[in-house]
Amino acid sequence: MKVVLLGSGNVATHLGKALKENHHTILQVWSRSEENAKELGAQLSAEGISSYDLLNPNADIYIISVPDTAIEGVSESFPFKSKLLVHTSGTTGIEVLEKASDKIGVFYPLQTFSKQRAVNFEIVPIAIEARTSEIESTLKELASSISETTVTFDSEKRKALHVAAVFACNFSNHFYTIANGILKDSGLDFGLLRPLIAETSLKVQSFFPHEVQTGPAVRNDQITVNKHLEFLKGKAELEELYKLISQNIINFHQKS
Amino acid sequence: MKVVLLGSGNVATHLGKALKENHHTILQVWSRSEENAKELGAQLSAEGISSYDLLNPNADIYIISVPDTAIEGVSESFPFKSKLLVHTSGTTGIEVLEKASDKIGVFYPLQTFSKQRAVNFEIVPIAIEARTSEIESTLKELASSISETTVTFDSEKRKALHVAAVFACNFSNHFYTIANGILKDSGLDFGLLRPLIAETSLKVQSFFPHEVQTGPAVRNDQITVNKHLEFLKGKAELEELYKLISQNIINFHQKS
Repeated sequence: MKVVLLGSGNVATHLGKALKENHHTILQVWSRSEENAKELGAQLSAEGISSYDLLNPNADIYIISVPDTAIEGVSESFPFKSKLLVHTSGTTGIEVLEKASDKIGVFYPLQTFSKQRAVNFEIVPIAIEARTSEIESTLKELASSISETTVTFDSEKRKALHVAAVFACNFSNHFYTIANGILKDSGLDFGLLRPLIAETSLKVQSFFPHEVQTGPAVRNDQITVNKHLEFLKGKAELEELYKLISQNIINFHQKS
Repeated sequence: MKVVLLGSGNVATHLGKALKENHHTILQVWSRSEENAKELGAQLSAEGISSYDLLNPNADIYIISVPDTAIEGVSESFPFKSKLLVHTSGTTGIEVLEKASDKIGVFYPLQTFSKQRAVNFEIVPIAIEARTSEIESTLKELASSISETTVTFDSEKRKALHVAAVFACNFSNHFYTIANGILKDSGLDFGLLRPLIAETSLKVQSFFPHEVQTGPAVRNDQITVNKHLEFLKGKAELEELYKLISQNIINFHQKS
């Protein structure tokens, strides 16, 4: 397919690379910043532009991949009323695109994208949503060409998936950051935790997480919990988080 | 070395297997429950006992691997005052063993151990502590025979390591559980999150976690954060956690 990307951030970058590698043609990269558009355009053998007037009308699909707060603004300026227009957001509903085009959809790749690291798109689930079955077929075909897992969800289910992903990925990663801070304060190296972090995520590849929960809270070992709270004294935010999550673990596992 | 294990839980099981595989001899497994002692004993080609009177006096090391709350009780009943006695706890100090023997130490393997899953001990860091340099050498030798990473930490540093591990592993795993609950409530499958969880942990194998943080909070995208809080309405505990951790992410990344 011939694709125009509107956006030049992490999702646009990795999605654009995956599309290009799988023999789609990226005609253009549009970005508010001409510099960013040209930079990503160069990587994707595409033209980089920052004006809506320069948008090529001959693409099969236009993919808006910008921060959620900017989707509506970009779609309001989108000039082609009968062209297939999608966004890549987990939480934004499909309806935000309604005024922009008659052919709309969502193409949400569920992964954590960082500039520094290549992504294997084959294992990235793509949640699509479409207003017609024809659009759904088109999006499924595009998704299947880069990923092994395509699902069709409405906006509410996609939001549930995104909220779940925030807990499983963004919050977990922040806890790695907190752990790194605790280690640094004691002069210890983050490398010590890397095998533990790897194993924690490997375990849930074949089990459900509640089946393999470990640590003082799930054992209801209040003596260790209290020693850890004592250790965290003076770091009020960490103390509060430790207390709250430990209690949440205890509540969950006592119920189940 | 000739080893006696006091304990039959997850740590004792996986440590015992690693020692046996690396050509140490497990003479006995002691447990309060004779059944558990005999069961693990059978796996390790060792005698299973539940009486302190039957402890074999000819081992080179006696390893107490029981819940933290039980370490003191077991050590009080340990009959050999001049035999090398260690525990495997992250948070319990070395001094808890002082009354039990003249030769004491700690042998703390930093990993999440579940009965259901084999562990590659080679990559498990082992934090040791010893009262004399002679004991330290012995423990280092034992640790090096099963793991590539041995560090010597005092009880305070070991506690820091354990607290950090609770955030990075136990709390992260509980967030996988929370994510699974959110998916289930919407009729979605946990399998959708597995590639994301894997990638999140893989990223920090080569980067620091703050370098690869993603999601609405680090972008300070309050619109998405608020939509997620709206989605979690009625689940007070999750709402509170979401709010608190998002604010913590914002605070951390604005400071840095």
